[in-house]
Amino acid sequence: MALMKTYKHLLISTRSHLRIITLNRPKSKNAINREMYDEIVCALNEAANDDNIVITAITGAGDYYCSGNDLRNFNDAGGDLGETIKKASSNLQKFVQTFFEFPKILAALVNGPAIGIAVTTLGLFDVVYASDRATFSTPFSSLGLTVEGCASYTFPRIMGPGKASEILYFNKKFTAQEAKECRLVTEVIPHDKLDRVLPELEKLSNLPANSLLYSKALVRNQEKENLQKAVEAECKRLEERWQSEDCLNAVIAFMSRKNKL
Amino acid sequence: MALMKTYKHLLISTRSHLRIITLNRPKSKNAINREMYDEIVCALNEAANDDNIVITAITGAGDYYCSGNDLRNFNDAGGDLGETIKKASSNLQKFVQTFFEFPKILAALVNGPAIGIAVTTLGLFDVVYASDRATFSTPFSSLGLTVEGCASYTFPRIMGPGKASEILYFNKKFTAQEAKECRLVTEVIPHDKLDRVLPELEKLSNLPANSLLYSKALVRNQEKENLQKAVEAECKRLEERWQSEDCLNAVIAFMSRKNKL
Amino acid sequence: MALMKTYKHLLISTRSHLRIITLNRPKSKNAINREMYDEIVCALNEAANDDNIVITAITGAGDYYCSGNDLRNFNDAGGDLGETIKKASSNLQKFVQTFFEFPKILAALVNGPAIGIAVTTLGLFDVVYASDRATFSTPFSSLGLTVEGCASYTFPRIMGPGKASEILYFNKKFTAQEAKECRLVTEVIPHDKLDRVLPELEKLSNLPANSLLYSKALVRNQEKENLQKAVEAECKRLEERWQSEDCLNAVIAFMSRKNKL
Repeated sequence: MALMKTYKHLLISTRSHLRIITLNRPKSKNAINREMYDEIVCALNEAANDDNIVITAITGAGDYYCSGNDLRNFNDAGGDLGETIKKASSNLQKFVQTFFEFPKILAALVNGPAIGIAVTTLGLFDVVYASDRATFSTPFSSLGLTVEGCASYTFPRIMGPGKASEILYFNKKFTAQEAKECRLVTEVIPHDKLDRVLPELEKLSNLPANSLLYSKALVRNQEKENLQKAVEAECKRLEERWQSEDCLNAVIAFMSRKNKL
Repeated sequence: MALMKTYKHLLISTRSHLRIITLNRPKSKNAINREMYDEIVCALNEAANDDNIVITAITGAGDYYCSGNDLRNFNDAGGDLGETIKKASSNLQKFVQTFFEFPKILAALVNGPAIGIAVTTLGLFDVVYASDRATFSTPFSSLGLTVEGCASYTFPRIMGPGKASEILYFNKKFTAQEAKECRLVTEVIPHDKLDRVLPELEKLSNLPANSLLYSKALVRNQEKENLQKAVEAECKRLEERWQSEDCLNAVIAFMSRKNKL
Repeated sequence: MALMKTYKHLLISTRSHLRIITLNRPKSKNAINREMYDEIVCALNEAANDDNIVITAITGAGDYYCSGNDLRNFNDAGGDLGETIKKASSNLQKFVQTFFEFPKILAALVNGPAIGIAVTTLGLFDVVYASDRATFSTPFSSLGLTVEGCASYTFPRIMGPGKASEILYFNKKFTAQEAKECRLVTEVIPHDKLDRVLPELEKLSNLPANSLLYSKALVRNQEKENLQKAVEAECKRLEERWQSEDCLNAVIAFMSRKNKL
């Protein structure tokens, strides 16, 4: 195996045929800044291309699983706005594609609150284990934004239209139990037993690799075209939204609340 | 805002950015006669085209939400049968299309029993709140008819094939709780607390309009082609069914029971 | 009605418009050997072509519903391996197609454990009634195999991705209650009340036949193209899997355990 890349915002480890990617910006509630977006794509590609890896798990360091897109990303833009928007959209599209094209079994271990893109991408995982302390929210509407992460395609199919509307349109926050009832979460685990999940996944990673990966390919290949269409439509819409008054006002309000704390 | 049309069988009101359409033929259990079909299409188009409106809620006056197609519609036909059937089919198609093309957030407030097309169209709503007194039945088979309202597409996806078969083929009547378990209903509300739903929807109607409506478009656009195919196939089949012995006998039996009461 | 074919491994009976097909190799836990595959296809075609039949139920004699593919089928191959594999794949494809092209209402009465292809094909039934003693497992990965029976298409849609992953990738065995919660099973029946299901289905078989069958056609026709693609991709992959080391080793291990008993 080639030496693994080192990461600034991720911890990477391997047990048997299980790769574990830990989001590691706990002081920022594991919010994803630009650098971290790139690192996650890179770490997933590394696992995808490593013949030793059968299952990949993503979890978070500290209390949060991941608080989603770091809204400071909106601040950092220098230079031409139109160009920045195009680049952000294309990066987001690449990020989401990396999830739905990921060829290994993909497991989430949601150790705490999950927000925004950290929730929507769960619809692209194979299994989602959640601590009973986890919560799930996608406050797109309150930020003047629109649905992303292929959730416009996956969430109504996973949850049914009603629950998908509540979380995607109405900013409803789901508990772990509610997320299980609507099938976004596969199993809810008492928080103090979370550490039993990774050994279990490690054991499963010893099953015949080709059986697991070919079965996943049979399932996923039927969706890829639809997922590709969904991510393209979502990103195109976000290019407009990011430049909208709705979004500008919401981000300014958010930042001024942040700065007062 | 232009003056609103006045309706014979509907009550229309507006709170903030919420339009409320109340089916108002309580003495006929809000059964939909020909005139009322046209009025519902018209009222939905009015809400669709009104820039002030973000969410539209449909509910029923009196004890019923809606008892479905008024079977007296079968009686009223004058003139050429073939032409009448073609017209009925094309009207039904337009009615159903109005629901799945509706661009605003569409909420049902099911205050009591719902039957037939009032149930199938729920699969085209974004959220469905139901009184614990609501029931849901689509007795197509017992009337010699076949599935309509795009339920041939939406119900198996929302409920899974087993529950969809029970309601669509076997005339099983679901309670509100059963309808929630199979995801046709988003939330069940104790009947005496139903009046809290509209203020909640009114509050949600103040969220950034474009975020809500563009998110809905991202979700719905992926289904439109399939929904269009479904409604066309369903209506074509009904043209045959309406002229069948099965249907004729069932309607005669129904009418003679009615007239004896 | 033409005289019915007689079967070696099936019991066939008719009540009103209900055809009952009983898998009848109880000493082999109703495992499906080559002859029995052919007989099931034949019995389903017979029911499909019999104008008297509206509903068809499949159940198992003895304690098991069906223990799936008889692994001895792997032993019996004589002659050219490549040709045998091609033939097995084409037979499996025909078997699965017979289920998703079946035009009558198809009900399963799962009287006990179900394994492999007896589980995956349940995703192609209209309703699935299960004894509380039934269990559901598809141990493809532990046998070096991959998903079949169109479950790569149906299971994620019926169960959501998480539960589908647990059963299809991770060899998780579901209880009847778990199978109901993930919608593979329509109703769980206390084992000593199972005999009430067939009279109920018989009663339903007297509903207007055309209404039931045309409604089913409206539902199923929307899926056929996708199901056809799924079964073709699954069978093509199995041609490779059947010749893999993974599968060979697993079958040898299984057979040597069997022979020691």
